[in-house]
Amino acid sequence: MAHFMNAREALVTEAIDGGLRAGAGRLARLDGYPHIRVVVRTDWDKSRVALVSGGGSGHEPAHAGFVGRGLLTAAVCGDVFASPSVDAVLAGILAVTGKAGCLLIVKNYTGDRLNFGLAAERARSFGLKVSMVIVDDDIALPDLPQARGVAGTLFVHKIAGALAEEGADLETVTAAAQGVVSRVASIGMSADTGTVPGSPKENRIAPGMAELGLGIHGEAGVEQVALSSARDAVAVVAQRLAPYLGSGDHVALVNNLGGATPLEMAVVTEELMKSEIGPRIRWMVGPAPLMTSLDMQGFSVSLLPVGPDEAAALMAPVACPAWPPCVEMAPVTVLALPDGLTPIAPLPSEHPETAEFIARCCDILIDAETDLNALDAKSGDGDTGATLAGAARALKTAMPRLPLADLTQLHRAIGLELSQTMGGSSGVLLAIFFSAAGDAAASGMGTVDALKAGLARIRQVGGAARGDRTMIDALEPALEALPEGLAAAARAAREGADATAAITRAKAGRASYVSADKLAGHNDPGAEAVARLFERLSA
Amino acid sequence: MAHFMNAREALVTEAIDGGLRAGAGRLARLDGYPHIRVVVRTDWDKSRVALVSGGGSGHEPAHAGFVGRGLLTAAVCGDVFASPSVDAVLAGILAVTGKAGCLLIVKNYTGDRLNFGLAAERARSFGLKVSMVIVDDDIALPDLPQARGVAGTLFVHKIAGALAEEGADLETVTAAAQGVVSRVASIGMSADTGTVPGSPKENRIAPGMAELGLGIHGEAGVEQVALSSARDAVAVVAQRLAPYLGSGDHVALVNNLGGATPLEMAVVTEELMKSEIGPRIRWMVGPAPLMTSLDMQGFSVSLLPVGPDEAAALMAPVACPAWPPCVEMAPVTVLALPDGLTPIAPLPSEHPETAEFIARCCDILIDAETDLNALDAKSGDGDTGATLAGAARALKTAMPRLPLADLTQLHRAIGLELSQTMGGSSGVLLAIFFSAAGDAAASGMGTVDALKAGLARIRQVGGAARGDRTMIDALEPALEALPEGLAAAARAAREGADATAAITRAKAGRASYVSADKLAGHNDPGAEAVARLFERLSA
Repeated sequence: MAHFMNAREALVTEAIDGGLRAGAGRLARLDGYPHIRVVVRTDWDKSRVALVSGGGSGHEPAHAGFVGRGLLTAAVCGDVFASPSVDAVLAGILAVTGKAGCLLIVKNYTGDRLNFGLAAERARSFGLKVSMVIVDDDIALPDLPQARGVAGTLFVHKIAGALAEEGADLETVTAAAQGVVSRVASIGMSADTGTVPGSPKENRIAPGMAELGLGIHGEAGVEQVALSSARDAVAVVAQRLAPYLGSGDHVALVNNLGGATPLEMAVVTEELMKSEIGPRIRWMVGPAPLMTSLDMQGFSVSLLPVGPDEAAALMAPVACPAWPPCVEMAPVTVLALPDGLTPIAPLPSEHPETAEFIARCCDILIDAETDLNALDAKSGDGDTGATLAGAARALKTAMPRLPLADLTQLHRAIGLELSQTMGGSSGVLLAIFFSAAGDAAASGMGTVDALKAGLARIRQVGGAARGDRTMIDALEPALEALPEGLAAAARAAREGADATAAITRAKAGRASYVSADKLAGHNDPGAEAVARLFERLSA
Repeated sequence: MAHFMNAREALVTEAIDGGLRAGAGRLARLDGYPHIRVVVRTDWDKSRVALVSGGGSGHEPAHAGFVGRGLLTAAVCGDVFASPSVDAVLAGILAVTGKAGCLLIVKNYTGDRLNFGLAAERARSFGLKVSMVIVDDDIALPDLPQARGVAGTLFVHKIAGALAEEGADLETVTAAAQGVVSRVASIGMSADTGTVPGSPKENRIAPGMAELGLGIHGEAGVEQVALSSARDAVAVVAQRLAPYLGSGDHVALVNNLGGATPLEMAVVTEELMKSEIGPRIRWMVGPAPLMTSLDMQGFSVSLLPVGPDEAAALMAPVACPAWPPCVEMAPVTVLALPDGLTPIAPLPSEHPETAEFIARCCDILIDAETDLNALDAKSGDGDTGATLAGAARALKTAMPRLPLADLTQLHRAIGLELSQTMGGSSGVLLAIFFSAAGDAAASGMGTVDALKAGLARIRQVGGAARGDRTMIDALEPALEALPEGLAAAARAAREGADATAAITRAKAGRASYVSADKLAGHNDPGAEAVARLFERLSA
């Protein structure tokens, strides 16, 4: 699998520039390419506590996508899965930090700790107030001396970001961040590994399996489990998270690790709410790609117990489109189906002449069954005759329940019968034809104009016009000639139907998929049916 | 590759319910499961024109994710890649349509045209005003009689949605929608096919290739091209779109087809703006997953020429988090690097006693090189001695430029030298130790307290405490004993270093990856170095 990128070493710099262009001027970067890649807010005046985060790239939208009012002040971007340098972090700190100071939010990976840590020292030697929190929210490996920092980091961004935006001082912001760090728990699960751009894919996870507790840099998980269902997968995740629940209500961050489809993420959300920890989840951020691992087909769930102040901070507005709103979970609201789905059967009425006319039409089509099938077999699947004859037989059976004395109702009733008994596109199109004609008749049109209105509608819905080798090639000239009598209509229909034998490039319908040499010399069976109908009626 | 789902036939219904739960009560569904899957706004009073769209699922967030104020009123969801039934569409229309009427926005696929078309007829027979537009924005197959409807459909949603929200009548909304349909053009490119949940993956696109102009239901593209770079890929897309440019400014919708990473999408954005059509693009929606094709690793670009009214409609606020704001493209803003990245070298000064003390320390570490390497070889990669001796030699060379007479500056200067000459984690940690000690000294602390402050900082950054088998096991007791003299400090350091031989479960540093049996009986080489330093200094 190739990737949409240019030189691998330019991937992060080009991606940052693309993000800045689409950032509507809200964001800028420092002039340090290629080694210093720092994204900063353009609307920042250093009057409040700055929040600086970052780390390796490949986790987008984290972290550059979360730079903006109410979230980060700067993001320091390393190469894919590699920590940024001390100089890059220092540049980020110096660019945004004023007298109010700066909080560094660091995911617990050795490279990030060290590079952010030394940069903090160097910044402090300039007299700047710099504090640092290290997020270690991954509960996958309880025996690991130092837990990794994963998607729970984003709760720290959001809650510290809201406080900083309000003007809280560095001690308050740092204490709030540290408070989140001490209580947040996360775990991930994936059905496939992510692919590092420019590198071959690692096929570590067998088809049908999923890995629990894997890291966001391709580190293997604690165990592989059979992925039998989303329900079982989420149950395992919920069971691991349950011991870390705090008191009261929780917010869940449901994170797409990159390659899971929105369908899957929605099912995961549904199962999470139905799981053993579901009743404890009052708010949610996501489901959305937030802290990805390239295109890893998995998800992670982060949980944080929150009181009213933190809930307010989670809800506070931000200027980052990549950050989904934190919402209060709602039950599934189900509304009653509207009336009208079961069509009201029109009152049957008698009208011997009309009944006889319809029966005659039906018999004509029934008689033509074999011929039309044979014609269709030359250019299609040979069922036009059977389809039309079947509909005709059904319509004859339905005669006693038709509103024969009310022409307006009758058109609609025929349309309804056809839509319920005739399969395929042609059934739907004929149903539309008669329904639309009925509507037109109801508005006072005469029969010919009403039929023309029906024709106009199937031209729109079917997308076919005259010359496209469909029944329209016979029906349209027939309706145009109908005011001059049935015989004129029959001649026009026949002329139109015969002309279809020369149309070898169909633009609509099934014949558009058939090669020209199979079409040449044969009338379109739909047009032929229309011609026979008018010919026999006028005979 | 398995998917996070339960029974395949329940995928769409469960996903809709998950979406409703996370929809904060903004959305509801009709009570028609499993066959009728219609998502509607809960804040809808039928007073304005309703917008109904939908089609097969697998394109999320389209269409259910775009139900909300300023966009769709209802989305009718078929199964994955399958049109919803006539009854489902009719239910959607009837549920949301009042006197103002309803516009159906339909992507040009036969099933959707027919089912939405017949549902429209049935709704009209109830006296409802229903109009319909069919979007055919895909320019991939110019010879195809009927172009497909793809991501450009979303411009129709947005512009019609803004007008409807303002209270425009059905004729106005329909005309605006039709106007968009007549001018929008889209094309897609992908490096891999999407995978239908529960079905095997189709490996149609060879590694290193990309397909141009493929459909959003797995239909093959018009041609395959070598994917040599994002620049070339976007150039092909731009070249195909160029003939469809209108007059004036354009908006581009940059759509992630599902599985492309945000990094790739940002590079695509950057290349699009640099392409031949870039100068014509004034606004952008995305890059974001908007009209996906499951997890297809590709993108599409849709272009629409817009005047001021349409631009305003594109910018109008919506209540759908999945809809990214339409932004005016900005140039890449580059800010100058802050001062301070190149550290100001402190003024060298002489202080023979200090110089002699530092030289002595350095010599002790240089002498210990072989022993420490040997010790490290038993539990690590055998370079602790070389690393420390190398740093010591470098520090001796740097002596003439050190501010020897200013203890505060001296700590910081030593930290800076070490950070520049010593590789690995230990170099960074020692740099942090001396920098932090320098800061503490600058604030007026005595030497011992300043060194303790340095120790506290490396404990935070390194994440190690006493008992974790690191140099802290010797350094911490040494500093605690230092007020009682060097001899006491040396005894404490030795005791601490020797105790590390019994610590077989390291919690930090490289030894945490080494098995217990390799650690047992050997002192940690870092702690041993500290002990030797104090012992030799006190000798």
